[in-house]
Amino acid sequence: MNSFGTLFRINIFGESHGESVGILIDGVPAGLSLCVDDFLIDIERRKGGLQKATTPRKEDDLPIFKSGIFNGKTTGAPLTIIFENNNTRSSDYEKQRDIPRPGHADFVASKKFGGFEDYRGSGHFSGRLTLCLVAAGVIAKKILKDISINATLVKVGGERDIERGIQKAIDTKDSVGGIIECKTIGLPIGLGEPFFDSVESLISHIVFSIPAIKGIEFGSGFAAAKMFGSQHNDSIIDENGATKTNNAGGIVAGLTNGNELVFRVAVKPTSSTPKEQQSLNITTNQIEEFSIKGRHDLCIALRVPVVLEAVTAIVLADLMMLEQRIPRAIK
Amino acid sequence: MNSFGTLFRINIFGESHGESVGILIDGVPAGLSLCVDDFLIDIERRKGGLQKATTPRKEDDLPIFKSGIFNGKTTGAPLTIIFENNNTRSSDYEKQRDIPRPGHADFVASKKFGGFEDYRGSGHFSGRLTLCLVAAGVIAKKILKDISINATLVKVGGERDIERGIQKAIDTKDSVGGIIECKTIGLPIGLGEPFFDSVESLISHIVFSIPAIKGIEFGSGFAAAKMFGSQHNDSIIDENGATKTNNAGGIVAGLTNGNELVFRVAVKPTSSTPKEQQSLNITTNQIEEFSIKGRHDLCIALRVPVVLEAVTAIVLADLMMLEQRIPRAIK
Amino acid sequence: MNSFGTLFRINIFGESHGESVGILIDGVPAGLSLCVDDFLIDIERRKGGLQKATTPRKEDDLPIFKSGIFNGKTTGAPLTIIFENNNTRSSDYEKQRDIPRPGHADFVASKKFGGFEDYRGSGHFSGRLTLCLVAAGVIAKKILKDISINATLVKVGGERDIERGIQKAIDTKDSVGGIIECKTIGLPIGLGEPFFDSVESLISHIVFSIPAIKGIEFGSGFAAAKMFGSQHNDSIIDENGATKTNNAGGIVAGLTNGNELVFRVAVKPTSSTPKEQQSLNITTNQIEEFSIKGRHDLCIALRVPVVLEAVTAIVLADLMMLEQRIPRAIK
Amino acid sequence: MNSFGTLFRINIFGESHGESVGILIDGVPAGLSLCVDDFLIDIERRKGGLQKATTPRKEDDLPIFKSGIFNGKTTGAPLTIIFENNNTRSSDYEKQRDIPRPGHADFVASKKFGGFEDYRGSGHFSGRLTLCLVAAGVIAKKILKDISINATLVKVGGERDIERGIQKAIDTKDSVGGIIECKTIGLPIGLGEPFFDSVESLISHIVFSIPAIKGIEFGSGFAAAKMFGSQHNDSIIDENGATKTNNAGGIVAGLTNGNELVFRVAVKPTSSTPKEQQSLNITTNQIEEFSIKGRHDLCIALRVPVVLEAVTAIVLADLMMLEQRIPRAIK
Repeated sequence: MNSFGTLFRINIFGESHGESVGILIDGVPAGLSLCVDDFLIDIERRKGGLQKATTPRKEDDLPIFKSGIFNGKTTGAPLTIIFENNNTRSSDYEKQRDIPRPGHADFVASKKFGGFEDYRGSGHFSGRLTLCLVAAGVIAKKILKDISINATLVKVGGERDIERGIQKAIDTKDSVGGIIECKTIGLPIGLGEPFFDSVESLISHIVFSIPAIKGIEFGSGFAAAKMFGSQHNDSIIDENGATKTNNAGGIVAGLTNGNELVFRVAVKPTSSTPKEQQSLNITTNQIEEFSIKGRHDLCIALRVPVVLEAVTAIVLADLMMLEQRIPRAIK
Repeated sequence: MNSFGTLFRINIFGESHGESVGILIDGVPAGLSLCVDDFLIDIERRKGGLQKATTPRKEDDLPIFKSGIFNGKTTGAPLTIIFENNNTRSSDYEKQRDIPRPGHADFVASKKFGGFEDYRGSGHFSGRLTLCLVAAGVIAKKILKDISINATLVKVGGERDIERGIQKAIDTKDSVGGIIECKTIGLPIGLGEPFFDSVESLISHIVFSIPAIKGIEFGSGFAAAKMFGSQHNDSIIDENGATKTNNAGGIVAGLTNGNELVFRVAVKPTSSTPKEQQSLNITTNQIEEFSIKGRHDLCIALRVPVVLEAVTAIVLADLMMLEQRIPRAIK
Repeated sequence: MNSFGTLFRINIFGESHGESVGILIDGVPAGLSLCVDDFLIDIERRKGGLQKATTPRKEDDLPIFKSGIFNGKTTGAPLTIIFENNNTRSSDYEKQRDIPRPGHADFVASKKFGGFEDYRGSGHFSGRLTLCLVAAGVIAKKILKDISINATLVKVGGERDIERGIQKAIDTKDSVGGIIECKTIGLPIGLGEPFFDSVESLISHIVFSIPAIKGIEFGSGFAAAKMFGSQHNDSIIDENGATKTNNAGGIVAGLTNGNELVFRVAVKPTSSTPKEQQSLNITTNQIEEFSIKGRHDLCIALRVPVVLEAVTAIVLADLMMLEQRIPRAIK
Repeated sequence: MNSFGTLFRINIFGESHGESVGILIDGVPAGLSLCVDDFLIDIERRKGGLQKATTPRKEDDLPIFKSGIFNGKTTGAPLTIIFENNNTRSSDYEKQRDIPRPGHADFVASKKFGGFEDYRGSGHFSGRLTLCLVAAGVIAKKILKDISINATLVKVGGERDIERGIQKAIDTKDSVGGIIECKTIGLPIGLGEPFFDSVESLISHIVFSIPAIKGIEFGSGFAAAKMFGSQHNDSIIDENGATKTNNAGGIVAGLTNGNELVFRVAVKPTSSTPKEQQSLNITTNQIEEFSIKGRHDLCIALRVPVVLEAVTAIVLADLMMLEQRIPRAIK
């Protein structure tokens, strides 16, 4: 259930306010150089913020290798990475427990796990676990070498000018969502499998495991539904399969067609808005006003691009292995 | 690769112009009554068309049970259903082969399978295989009993008036796409798993295995990206988890929350448009004009609603089994 | 549940006295020549008998290809093979139903599937389904090309002289079991995965799905438990990993070591013995004497060697694919 | 590859002389009490030795919970346990590296992983990882509650008197193997699935992942091959399926039949014998005499019973979940 992939297989674990979060990756080829520094840029990008720090802050969220690395290289055995949780001020959550926060796991997780779930900071459902996805993504990107994956925020709060979108949130003391676009170049033709393991199927599967994603579209996506077939069809113009247009977003019949892979996702506004909200107090069975304490992101979408790149890389590494384009031991 | 599901597991096979298409389903509970008549309405719906026939045409696309049924009931052993292909006029495809049709599997499948693929009518990639999904969906719906799944076409060619959208296609001699909405009521709280097997992940995975789907959104979906958190959050209003609004589309933290499950998909315009098109002739390496022969749907989206219901039912049946809400033998 | 394998994946279906038995194989490389004749020898071998017919009887148990083959070659899409059941005289089983036959699925299957199972001739649990394994084995053997798998009956009824063992059964009007040895040459070093997917793990897993197998041992097997380490260890004598002895049976640390792969299995005596037996009549709750009607094998072990080769080939084809030694399309 | 199970799913990681070994378990029901003390007895048993210490030594091999536990109970989220490696004197292995040890992973692992494997003390192939299996087994046993699993050493070095078998090893300065029998009582009827997931298939699969196991037999096992059908068949004597004899070892048609589940395994003599041995020096390509340094078990079989119980419990917990006999949250 908490695993994904066939030959490059990830298993995620941990809780927001538990001891640690981590990821176990099976199927990493042997012989890949790997060190803590490889992870710093992407981990820093995940911290979000409009002003990117020039130097990554090395002090937090450092990956600790627990298995699968020897003499600075991967061994082919399962690779485990752990991130310790230093911030464990969880008393706030205890108080909040009676009023399940709208948009959060609180109510549904409690029903599913009989009240035994770690409810602090959404526990195992927390966005903090995307740190593990980013770590796996770093490894997947290394495996993919000449394939370049690039995700960018294209809209915030409905605005193409991202700073203006953020300013709206600040001005209204509310949270906002956004749209992120992910583009990949350098893919061979024929990745993906017919039907259930189409490239769209696999990417969307893992993309929707990122908290706050509520939509995905490939190529022209929803706009395609308004187009005529003669407009939407991408004519093949050379023997390598290059097409004149790219309405398909690089995927035909579920397989990569050698053109740029393009998709966009919708990120909902952060559920933890600074605004006062209403919800049911499950102890008193009364609807109450409440507001969420603590420092929260006004726009979680700012932090998602690197996570989106990571999950895309995870899928593509697996598909490249299925096509025997990645050896089991890298020389 | 051609299979999907954990406890209710489907395996699809067959080609458009081969001998048959079919589906093997493992994990069907024992004791479920099943006969050919159970399938007729949904199979008829899949044939599309604006004027629905009052009586289902019983003569084509009848399911043939090959295993798993005894005395009119499922046995708990794998259930296999085959549909024979009667229309095997495939000489047209032979002629077309030099010019891979835009938007179709022709070019990519040939690259992937070294030219050994059955290219007639898209072979194993054909929309004809959705007939098998519909059949599995009939069984899944029976298993789900009191859960009601309903998909409807909400837009064609950009128009809310569906007939007008179709008329556009007829007038321009082109094909059009559409938007379909799927709503499910009666779900318990807590279906789905944290992270990789979120309800959105599983539904989108199988939805994108339906040919021609290029986008999916849950609840407010892409519109959520323009909303404020205070607008988007759905306040819980009673102890059963009913919410005031349903921007989440019935899924929070990847789990069902007991409210209506709502999602929409974008269907691209039929790739086989009557319009003249250009593509590369891979033998001469010249770009050529060509037009697609034969009778094709002007709007494939007309046929998708029942397929969408089917795949939704397949996912939900599996999730209900994982929650132990469906016994292995139905009394 | 009724499937096995990672990249070469088989799914079995059907019942002894239903319409058919069959197998769906996913992951067959494209471009493999395949015709009915390829199957005849192994299907004939499965019929058992001490006097092997010089010409295979072509009239029964012919494979019917339902998908995955085009122009005499595999396409890379799922391959489905069906065998029709012609013998459906099942009235005998109806009468027998009150008294579950010792050693057969009757009692346990009824408890598991709530009485809905197809009980005729053991239904889905029948040895008839090994016909499907043999068919998949034919394909796997073709994929393995230069790897040679050979299983032989080495003991019947405790006798090395097989005919004498059979004679014992005839003389006592009882059934007997046997020991089969399977040897494979031509394997590369390093097939298998550490821990759970060791070669022994995978082979034993599928071997125990063959009805009537009650034991398996690799190399020296149970005899190893009596040996000293200095006797059991196989010294490596050349750079290709050849060993002086082969007590390990060609597997060290779960991986093939390039030497002959050797294992033996124990087949229990046919449960359907001609002798009178006792069992509980579940309707009257009385213990009754009864005897099994119809023609049954005195020694089912005679028919197992080709099935054992088949399942071994199935595992090895999958492992060869995992090591990228079989291309996805064979030129 | 390094994972096993469907609903109770284990993933193993770590190396003998790396930082740690560990196990990630997905599918543990929520609400199970769990503390370090629960693990001590089984961990102590795994240390082997004829004189069992009266008080478990608490200082080594203590499980460290990394995820999935909150307030002393399981949460339903993935549970991760790590054991740190304190003994990392690995310089000995560096010296040994030129001469692959017979019976060990050295040669094959190096070929498989291109020389990148952690070769120290067999790395990821080490018997040390069985500590993780024991830990998972403790949890599985807790889940199984009223089901009792008991494995005992029944022969060492061919002797029923275990101390005499050990003495043989001491006297000859060699290592010896053994036979272990595992018995389980309290199982319901109908666990297991037809064909590939028969109880024998699943148990043997995981049993052969334990290093040094070379054979397994259920019930009468290899002896069954010498019996007549009338002797081997177990007559059903009451409506609960109790049988007069138990030659089947509690499994018929791959399913549990409610009688005692019985199987035996053969453990080879420890490969690291104190005796001088020969092997190829892969650098000089000469056969050399060498002897293995350090303290090694004369009879690894002494340590296997608790591991065998653990893997049996792991399989049975999974099968009980598949039959919906274990709730997802334990009240």
